[in-house]
Amino acid sequence: MSNKVVLAFSGGLDTSYCVKYLADERGLEVHTATVNTGGFSPQELQAIEDGALALGAASHVTLEETLAFYQQCVKYLIFGNVLRNGTYPLSVSAERMFQALAIARYAKKIGAGYIAHGSTGAGNDQVRFDLVFHILCPDIQVITPIRDQSLSRQAEIDYLMAKGVNRDWTKAQYSINQGLWGTSVGGKETLTSHLPLPEEAYPSQLQTHEPSELELQFEKGELVAVNGQAGDPVSNIQRVQELAAPYAIGRDYHVGDTIIGIKGRIGFEAAASYIIMKAHHQLEKHTLSKWQLYWKEQLANWYGMMVHEGTFLDPVMRNIEGFLQESQQTVSGTVTVALMPYRFQVQGISSAHDLMSSSFGSYGEENKGWSGEDVKGFTKILANSLKIYHAVNKEKEWSVQE
Amino acid sequence: MSNKVVLAFSGGLDTSYCVKYLADERGLEVHTATVNTGGFSPQELQAIEDGALALGAASHVTLEETLAFYQQCVKYLIFGNVLRNGTYPLSVSAERMFQALAIARYAKKIGAGYIAHGSTGAGNDQVRFDLVFHILCPDIQVITPIRDQSLSRQAEIDYLMAKGVNRDWTKAQYSINQGLWGTSVGGKETLTSHLPLPEEAYPSQLQTHEPSELELQFEKGELVAVNGQAGDPVSNIQRVQELAAPYAIGRDYHVGDTIIGIKGRIGFEAAASYIIMKAHHQLEKHTLSKWQLYWKEQLANWYGMMVHEGTFLDPVMRNIEGFLQESQQTVSGTVTVALMPYRFQVQGISSAHDLMSSSFGSYGEENKGWSGEDVKGFTKILANSLKIYHAVNKEKEWSVQE
Amino acid sequence: MSNKVVLAFSGGLDTSYCVKYLADERGLEVHTATVNTGGFSPQELQAIEDGALALGAASHVTLEETLAFYQQCVKYLIFGNVLRNGTYPLSVSAERMFQALAIARYAKKIGAGYIAHGSTGAGNDQVRFDLVFHILCPDIQVITPIRDQSLSRQAEIDYLMAKGVNRDWTKAQYSINQGLWGTSVGGKETLTSHLPLPEEAYPSQLQTHEPSELELQFEKGELVAVNGQAGDPVSNIQRVQELAAPYAIGRDYHVGDTIIGIKGRIGFEAAASYIIMKAHHQLEKHTLSKWQLYWKEQLANWYGMMVHEGTFLDPVMRNIEGFLQESQQTVSGTVTVALMPYRFQVQGISSAHDLMSSSFGSYGEENKGWSGEDVKGFTKILANSLKIYHAVNKEKEWSVQE
Amino acid sequence: MSNKVVLAFSGGLDTSYCVKYLADERGLEVHTATVNTGGFSPQELQAIEDGALALGAASHVTLEETLAFYQQCVKYLIFGNVLRNGTYPLSVSAERMFQALAIARYAKKIGAGYIAHGSTGAGNDQVRFDLVFHILCPDIQVITPIRDQSLSRQAEIDYLMAKGVNRDWTKAQYSINQGLWGTSVGGKETLTSHLPLPEEAYPSQLQTHEPSELELQFEKGELVAVNGQAGDPVSNIQRVQELAAPYAIGRDYHVGDTIIGIKGRIGFEAAASYIIMKAHHQLEKHTLSKWQLYWKEQLANWYGMMVHEGTFLDPVMRNIEGFLQESQQTVSGTVTVALMPYRFQVQGISSAHDLMSSSFGSYGEENKGWSGEDVKGFTKILANSLKIYHAVNKEKEWSVQE
Repeated sequence: MSNKVVLAFSGGLDTSYCVKYLADERGLEVHTATVNTGGFSPQELQAIEDGALALGAASHVTLEETLAFYQQCVKYLIFGNVLRNGTYPLSVSAERMFQALAIARYAKKIGAGYIAHGSTGAGNDQVRFDLVFHILCPDIQVITPIRDQSLSRQAEIDYLMAKGVNRDWTKAQYSINQGLWGTSVGGKETLTSHLPLPEEAYPSQLQTHEPSELELQFEKGELVAVNGQAGDPVSNIQRVQELAAPYAIGRDYHVGDTIIGIKGRIGFEAAASYIIMKAHHQLEKHTLSKWQLYWKEQLANWYGMMVHEGTFLDPVMRNIEGFLQESQQTVSGTVTVALMPYRFQVQGISSAHDLMSSSFGSYGEENKGWSGEDVKGFTKILANSLKIYHAVNKEKEWSVQE
Repeated sequence: MSNKVVLAFSGGLDTSYCVKYLADERGLEVHTATVNTGGFSPQELQAIEDGALALGAASHVTLEETLAFYQQCVKYLIFGNVLRNGTYPLSVSAERMFQALAIARYAKKIGAGYIAHGSTGAGNDQVRFDLVFHILCPDIQVITPIRDQSLSRQAEIDYLMAKGVNRDWTKAQYSINQGLWGTSVGGKETLTSHLPLPEEAYPSQLQTHEPSELELQFEKGELVAVNGQAGDPVSNIQRVQELAAPYAIGRDYHVGDTIIGIKGRIGFEAAASYIIMKAHHQLEKHTLSKWQLYWKEQLANWYGMMVHEGTFLDPVMRNIEGFLQESQQTVSGTVTVALMPYRFQVQGISSAHDLMSSSFGSYGEENKGWSGEDVKGFTKILANSLKIYHAVNKEKEWSVQE
Repeated sequence: MSNKVVLAFSGGLDTSYCVKYLADERGLEVHTATVNTGGFSPQELQAIEDGALALGAASHVTLEETLAFYQQCVKYLIFGNVLRNGTYPLSVSAERMFQALAIARYAKKIGAGYIAHGSTGAGNDQVRFDLVFHILCPDIQVITPIRDQSLSRQAEIDYLMAKGVNRDWTKAQYSINQGLWGTSVGGKETLTSHLPLPEEAYPSQLQTHEPSELELQFEKGELVAVNGQAGDPVSNIQRVQELAAPYAIGRDYHVGDTIIGIKGRIGFEAAASYIIMKAHHQLEKHTLSKWQLYWKEQLANWYGMMVHEGTFLDPVMRNIEGFLQESQQTVSGTVTVALMPYRFQVQGISSAHDLMSSSFGSYGEENKGWSGEDVKGFTKILANSLKIYHAVNKEKEWSVQE
Repeated sequence: MSNKVVLAFSGGLDTSYCVKYLADERGLEVHTATVNTGGFSPQELQAIEDGALALGAASHVTLEETLAFYQQCVKYLIFGNVLRNGTYPLSVSAERMFQALAIARYAKKIGAGYIAHGSTGAGNDQVRFDLVFHILCPDIQVITPIRDQSLSRQAEIDYLMAKGVNRDWTKAQYSINQGLWGTSVGGKETLTSHLPLPEEAYPSQLQTHEPSELELQFEKGELVAVNGQAGDPVSNIQRVQELAAPYAIGRDYHVGDTIIGIKGRIGFEAAASYIIMKAHHQLEKHTLSKWQLYWKEQLANWYGMMVHEGTFLDPVMRNIEGFLQESQQTVSGTVTVALMPYRFQVQGISSAHDLMSSSFGSYGEENKGWSGEDVKGFTKILANSLKIYHAVNKEKEWSVQE
């Protein structure tokens, strides 16, 4: 077996410890890899690379997966307007999956015998990473030093210092995970059920009180232009985030079941995903049939759950994507959104596929498409089954009460 | 057949016309009835009664149904956190059903041969009314003068003037329907797909910039106290509405399919229902299992759809209520909500049934309930089916890409 | 408006009456059309044509839709293993839809001003036909003489005799509707809830007691060969029917809700659809993931309901087809079926995509893929959420009972 | 910690080994317990008790759980007509859960420090047992000697012989698990995907060719009488089994996903459950509304899945039971079933709640409840949304094809 190990490397204390540990204690050739799914700037990536090499990594690579992440996942989250438990846009969980996929591919490509990651034994990420590796590269052995050794941060720092690595490992007050589809904020208050995060914990601070308007153009469900300027969906998402961030929009808490069975609570800020999905949903309400809206919701909620829980590789996910893709044929048009401090409002839509066209009759207004007599017949037949049911069963509760 | 007709009477132009028409043109004995489901003040009800009698109604009655509406419907909308199409709290549609039920009961009670209502042939309400009457009192004949005659407002006014009825029938710019569970706002802009309602169209105008905090106490899913003061759920809902209205909270648009098949758009303002349901949902996220949350959502969405579409009398609704009632056994606790201009934020919850208890391990923290080794085994078994699937089927898309 | 009318013509009394009535009483140019979706033999089609022309139709055409019916509908019914209410393979209802589609297309093609069909006012078919015409050709007027005039059979016969048409219109004891996907049998006993149909009412009578074996080969969900002989799916279905009919297989009753709200009961015999779908389903159980099976069932049941109720043109149906198509990627292999008097048994399957491969461990047998320790960890983590729930809530029912 | 161990004891080789091992190698006080959920005769239970005491158990108890099993589980399986993957009536899997529950209660009652069971590391049962113990008695340690030691049968026999235990441990060719709700048959052919079980593998052999008729009376969904003779549901189930067994009815294969992720295949014979559920379902088709049938199916399938997979203690199961219980209010009446060699046929039903009453109009017949004009109006309105959709979107596929 090859003694190459691919280490999923973030540049933090845990994975820095892993570089030294894997090389010195396990005698492996450490190839660090950082997967960018939209959360890193070029400067950050360079700093991570420098750090890896300085720690003695045999090689370092940045795997650029932002586009793949959009095309194979975020696109469908938008098609499905996915908010986990009605709230959480999967800001971080979805990205983990694509980081794991990229690491698995890279490990196979360079013929590694091992994959290592820095997850602890207490969260969802260990499951997301392990699952992908078990499924896609069952012959590669997975090493998880942090989970296995349960070291304290101080013990890791001491070990690194003994190896001559001297850096500032001060832990931030809040754990911030930034990505293309949102930023999670955890720590202190989120470990309780009752305390809200303080204003300053959020990455975007309110910078303007001046409302503005945003025009989002969708083509078959994809965001193809912002304020009249065309662009690829990924940069459009980033553009919306830039325009909305000064309003401190899109904050809330996600409370839900972790993959390992306990309940967890996390704050997040996700202006772009919130705005884009609500705008997209409004457009769908005008352009899809009632049952399309109904079934999209069922399937998309399930899709989001499986993304969140790391079972993205279940083939049912490809089938659901088939449904969602089909459902977007008519979801084209423009949505206007008002941005205001801490909130936004979808103002309206215009679309060549708008089914709310006055040419077919307006709700509550007289029209030419049908008559009151037609509705009388409609209602009479619609009543049939329930009229029979109540005649046969004579439920007490709805009869005359004296 | 009795020549008594029970007329669902609101005091507006259409139903005023109906009083005269039914009495003078059809020769019927007109008994007007106004159903209160929480949207009328005592003063308004008195004025309606005076108006009915002045028009020559043989009798007038106010049917007080607010409590029944809460106990038989709103309660379940809260249990289910029901927002139609993810947005609309059924502010008006649910009340129509209970108005129809009360009218049907009253007509049977007084032995009426006819029921009349003032719906036009262009909206949902005609279906909601007719359905209930067909189902519960199929032997009573339904008369709908406005739908049948398609008169213009002016023609109705002229008819009434000729009968000596002289009132100011000036139509408001927006049609406002106020109820216990919210207020709908329709007209002008809502007849288009792209225009937002102007600020002044909404019933509640912003009156304070001073944030405040609200404490909602739930017992088995029902709101039993507000800010520490116990009360019956109906008055608690009204109390939340009073406290939240100065912040102009809970506005949005509902776009969706009407019962008669066209798309409709309506503005609404529903501070109490929005705040109560989001608080209740947050409490549930802490106290219910993942699959309870999942199935509640499925069933409650369906429940809301059938309420909205007037098929509340389908026996499946009673079965869903059975499920929802059962699901609230542990939904007890206190939720804190911050009120701010145009928005609110659920801050946190406390509950004796909170499943996010640190005594069982905290998300992302070390714990005693299980080990990293357990999670390794968990993930290995969890991977089994997908490992086999991908080994057998070798999907191209996830393999090494050069 | 053109005075051409396209009449959906079956050759029976009702539609024969329509030819004369439309021509002589309405003064229209009658173009009869018979749609074959697999239920007619060439001889029957010729006889129908002869009959139409003899009645004075201006033209007659046979619209051959069997292949379209298979490709656009039956294929998906198989993919989805669709049995309405767990029993009925939509033997007849699905075909009506394709007959209506073909009639609509033909009427547009020849520039007809009218479409006529012979449905009564008491069944589902009137809805299925009218729906398609309203949707696809709203400018063409629909005429339904039988529904509108509520004539007795004798009155129709008398009218035709007066017009010089003398045929034997004796009504069969049972109404038999034969099609590609099954045959329905209605009359006498099926109008009650408690009586079974007599043996002789069924079209296929038991002709052999000798068991035989059938080998069905599927490729991506489609039946591509029977007993090793390749063929197109339509002729394969017909081949299975021929081989199974002597065993009198596939009889049962469908009881369910009609589109117009009453309950209906109908007998049927559908050997080919029963055998093919059960064989296909067995293959899927071996080749699809648990959640593919789960979601396929949800969507396919819904799909079947909408086919049955005539709303096949809802765009959600195309989305569901997208899902179902995607789901069949690995559903390839061979299924063996034993045929016996009045019953059949799926014996087993073989497939390159079989996920029940002993190389990954056999159920209940020792294996190399994982250890008992792994399962211990799995179960410990799986128990987490419920362990917490029961510790927090201490439900009485499961604790010690003295 | 108490040194008492409660051992779930079946009398077979594995659990006999456990008695000796736990007493002699672990030094524990072994209290054997056999849980009867309907699969054991009094003679078998006595033999098991004798065997346990002969092996040196400190005490033995038979826990009689058949009634609890019916009331807390089988009843709901009938209400829900539950067939896993459309085929398997959970003949064995449901009983395991109740055996585990009884063992957990008994262990708590006698203050045991340990629970032992004889499951291997290769099947579902280990998960079902462990889950219940982790959830209900997390402080009691679970011991699984067979899973931990991976001994061969011969090694176990040798160990017992060395201890002076000399019995005939010859393994039957097929592993048969008999219970109240059916009998599973595994071995040899079921380890393959393609081979059927031979006739002689099944417990019931065909003993008559004489058809007979069975009359099942249901009251709110429960089977209260068989052939006119009242009885408690458990003995009624057993009575149906006795009457149907001579016909060798209810055989099929279950292929599905195990809890541990591999696919498994098992034969079964379950005459009573098949007949009772199909009869019950037929009665429901006559007495429930369309949407009751729809939602019952969704929830019951899920319920069956969780029973099968051992997560019966999830609180969502109590909520689903609430729904199912509510749904049975009108499911009362009599069902006639014909029994024939290897098959049965539900003949018909009679019920005071039958919604298919000719007094409301018969399907396909003229009636007085509504007119053809009503249906025209119904269909016109029903067409509205799709007419608009197709007018706006002009899908190519349904338009004129030249």
